[in-house]
Amino acid sequence: MSAGRFATVVLPLAALALLGAAPKPDGSEQAVQKIVASPGFKAAVADLDRTHDRMVADIVTLTEIPAPPFKEAAKGRAVMAMMKAEGLADVEMDPEGNVMGLRRGTGPAGGKLVAFAAHQDTVFPEGTVTKVRREGTRLYAPGVGDDTRSLAVMLAYIRALDAAKIQTRSDILFVADVGEEGPGDLRGMRYLFGKGKYKDRIQAFFSMDGLNPAGITYAAVGSRRYRVSFHGPGGHSYGAFGIVNPMAAMAHAVDELYEVKVPAHPKTTYSASVVSGGVSVNSIPADVTLEVDMRSESAEELAKLDARFLAILKDAEAHENAARSTGVGKITVTPKLIGERPTGSTSPEAPIVRTVAAAARAAGYTPQLDASSTDANIPISLGIPAVTIGSGGGGGRAHSLDEWIDVAKPESLRGMTVGLAALLATAGV
Amino acid sequence: MSAGRFATVVLPLAALALLGAAPKPDGSEQAVQKIVASPGFKAAVADLDRTHDRMVADIVTLTEIPAPPFKEAAKGRAVMAMMKAEGLADVEMDPEGNVMGLRRGTGPAGGKLVAFAAHQDTVFPEGTVTKVRREGTRLYAPGVGDDTRSLAVMLAYIRALDAAKIQTRSDILFVADVGEEGPGDLRGMRYLFGKGKYKDRIQAFFSMDGLNPAGITYAAVGSRRYRVSFHGPGGHSYGAFGIVNPMAAMAHAVDELYEVKVPAHPKTTYSASVVSGGVSVNSIPADVTLEVDMRSESAEELAKLDARFLAILKDAEAHENAARSTGVGKITVTPKLIGERPTGSTSPEAPIVRTVAAAARAAGYTPQLDASSTDANIPISLGIPAVTIGSGGGGGRAHSLDEWIDVAKPESLRGMTVGLAALLATAGV
Repeated sequence: MSAGRFATVVLPLAALALLGAAPKPDGSEQAVQKIVASPGFKAAVADLDRTHDRMVADIVTLTEIPAPPFKEAAKGRAVMAMMKAEGLADVEMDPEGNVMGLRRGTGPAGGKLVAFAAHQDTVFPEGTVTKVRREGTRLYAPGVGDDTRSLAVMLAYIRALDAAKIQTRSDILFVADVGEEGPGDLRGMRYLFGKGKYKDRIQAFFSMDGLNPAGITYAAVGSRRYRVSFHGPGGHSYGAFGIVNPMAAMAHAVDELYEVKVPAHPKTTYSASVVSGGVSVNSIPADVTLEVDMRSESAEELAKLDARFLAILKDAEAHENAARSTGVGKITVTPKLIGERPTGSTSPEAPIVRTVAAAARAAGYTPQLDASSTDANIPISLGIPAVTIGSGGGGGRAHSLDEWIDVAKPESLRGMTVGLAALLATAGV
Repeated sequence: MSAGRFATVVLPLAALALLGAAPKPDGSEQAVQKIVASPGFKAAVADLDRTHDRMVADIVTLTEIPAPPFKEAAKGRAVMAMMKAEGLADVEMDPEGNVMGLRRGTGPAGGKLVAFAAHQDTVFPEGTVTKVRREGTRLYAPGVGDDTRSLAVMLAYIRALDAAKIQTRSDILFVADVGEEGPGDLRGMRYLFGKGKYKDRIQAFFSMDGLNPAGITYAAVGSRRYRVSFHGPGGHSYGAFGIVNPMAAMAHAVDELYEVKVPAHPKTTYSASVVSGGVSVNSIPADVTLEVDMRSESAEELAKLDARFLAILKDAEAHENAARSTGVGKITVTPKLIGERPTGSTSPEAPIVRTVAAAARAAGYTPQLDASSTDANIPISLGIPAVTIGSGGGGGRAHSLDEWIDVAKPESLRGMTVGLAALLATAGV
């Protein structure tokens, strides 16, 4: 997941309802209740229960195949083989690297469909050890929860639907997509909705990302990301002392950025995330590179922060060129936009939101609406009903090397029922 | 060379003399004049002339054996074989990696000796292509001038002394040492003067480093180098926004450091040289590492700067822990000293300095005194008369991938006579 679905604005649905007129019933609640009471759904859940160990084994297998941004292919091939093994039709890897398989419904071939996605990529760079360490019901590994558990849960759904012989009205497109994290900049989703062969058929979209089964991401947090190059002449640390240093310009910019006040609501954030530069301790560096991430629930606040940041860069450049000698060269500061995600929102009263909320309640959870930056940003920006939901189970420390999940069956299984019920209610049975 | 012998304080000897009373003559001038006029010296120079192509071939051979810091062994073995081939006695590699051979004088065995050194290591990391490209009289390759030419010149001296049948009074210890550049932190010299078998016998020391035959490094620029670890909890750029960021602490420290005013005389410098940290644009980093180099001609100024820098680090740590939430962890800033070179000076009136000056003048150069950070720092700090001199010839861009030297014979040879005359005058003939 891209935006901390665990820690953003959270509104219980009831509170949302209190903000305005209570939403009119639209049948979502009843449809979900009918589904979860059905023998077919119960049979599917029984299969999830029976094959839970298999699902956990799939998490381990897939986690241990590294999938850094732009290097998802090995994991993609493994998922493709698993989708085929589950009997999915038309399994393929698209030119961007998304792996997809279609589960036909009873409707006409080539009609509208529901897409259900989990992402292959992790935030972790090449070389990160992704070996899973198990302690009791806990699995520790980078990427184990974000988003490998979701991939395994998706495979378990395919298996359970077949075991329970459930036929949906719409086709369901299961997608293991690429490019969700940072530098990927939602490239998988951009392809799926911009160029992919199913692009005009998707009428509803679920991203399963992260764990919280009560969380419903209905709003897309927008982001702008920059890679900033600070360049100067460089030289000997002693012999050339007194010349401008791109490191000092970078430091000045970051120091100023961290003085910027942003609103808590709409939530707006920034992060100086990655830095590198210099070749040896006895050389003034010629190049320093900084990566910065800025996000907001509000397009207006994001634009404001973006403008402020660009002004800070100009100021840092001018400051360094004034502070030290430019006799052998000046500092230049060049920001390059490396990521831009649209801001937007599925209506909190849209059927897809109500359906997930009903499914969460049916499993005993109190649904919570949140805003985040996820694969759903792309369909949301296109006006396609889309939400991001969780795969269940406990866990923590996503995006850190000590990431972990808890696969203790009762809670894991209960969480898994939410996505399945919401998917079936949306696809129709 | 470690400290830009090309670009530090340069005082013509005449100017130095003007600063106080003219130094009393001590016989250095006459001794050098007598040597350069002697048939033996002329025969040696004739040999340097005759075997100049061989010296150039040695430069190429040795440059093309990479010698990154701590990885000098292959080059060391090649130099050892060449020293043996030149008939030097007691050729050996010491446990640190220095390669040495003794040329016996007429004095008693085991008595005082003169050491003459050039360093094996280059600043270039493993994997750097060191293939020499020749264009006319120019040789291009990383490390070709710093300090490989000096190694070849040292071998040529050994050959010429034998060809001219010159006997010195003192033994001469020829040393191809390790660890002169950055991270090596003068480890070769520390061993030679701290533990080596000749450590109590060295009464005078020459380092031949770089090209300028008129330059005499008599003062040791001291340095302190730190690798600073900025550590924090890390987390999701959006979800965990508001927590402390080690990048912000690093930036605050660098920004403050670059406000520090240091004296131009005694020359005192700092450089924030290398930085790295962060794993992905959408994560608040857990670790940022910064390397800083500080130098001064004055031990007192260096200590002052060092204390100021350490205070800045403490301040940056406190500032960041106060500016943002420490709920999931605090910022810790941990400096590690990775380099420390002593400050000091051989008296500009010491015989060894006057001798080199006289040898430079005898070759038609105007001697220039400078301060730098070189292998001579170690003997200087121990009170042993020591200077660093150049090997002659033209060149430029030391410490860069486009380093080059010009081996056009007339100028190359003229430069080589300076070191030979100074060595003979110091060892006595």
